[in-house]
Amino acid sequence: MSESDAVLIGNKPVMNYVLACITLFHGVAKEVHVKARGRSISLAVDVVEVVRRRFLPNVKIKGIGIGTQQMAPREEGGSPSNVSTIEISLEQ
Amino acid sequence: MSESDAVLIGNKPVMNYVLACITLFHGVAKEVHVKARGRSISLAVDVVEVVRRRFLPNVKIKGIGIGTQQMAPREEGGSPSNVSTIEISLEQ
Repeated sequence: MSESDAVLIGNKPVMNYVLACITLFHGVAKEVHVKARGRSISLAVDVVEVVRRRFLPNVKIKGIGIGTQQMAPREEGGSPSNVSTIEISLEQ
Repeated sequence: MSESDAVLIGNKPVMNYVLACITLFHGVAKEVHVKARGRSISLAVDVVEVVRRRFLPNVKIKGIGIGTQQMAPREEGGSPSNVSTIEISLEQ
């Protein structure tokens, strides 16, 4: 583990990711970056809110960034599609 | 219209909200606040990304805030539930 770690949000239950964040903060991590894309963005916000409000009130939101990632075409000759991304940086 | 307007994201197609933002910026609005809660948060990020990248490259993200809103119980005696919220402030 480094002092700055990332939690990538997929489609598991919210508490899985909350636990991952708490575990990182209880290790050496001073910063945790919660990253998600597409439909998982809502879940990323849920994770951060549960971590801050229920478990680690000292954790602050350092910054929130959004962006767009271009995905490779699904089939040969198809057009590339775009997906939105979010990165929420937390620090304690 | 005031100089600061809000677009509330629901579950319509993304381009409906993109058009709402563009219309506000073409009026007197200097700032537009894109707000969403729950599953619509992902859509809010999509809307902002489409507005910035495809239509109004001069528009900047002024700030992004997330929070939690407590909802009234669905039935008498039920427990209140929490929903995550996002507010993305844009300015041109």
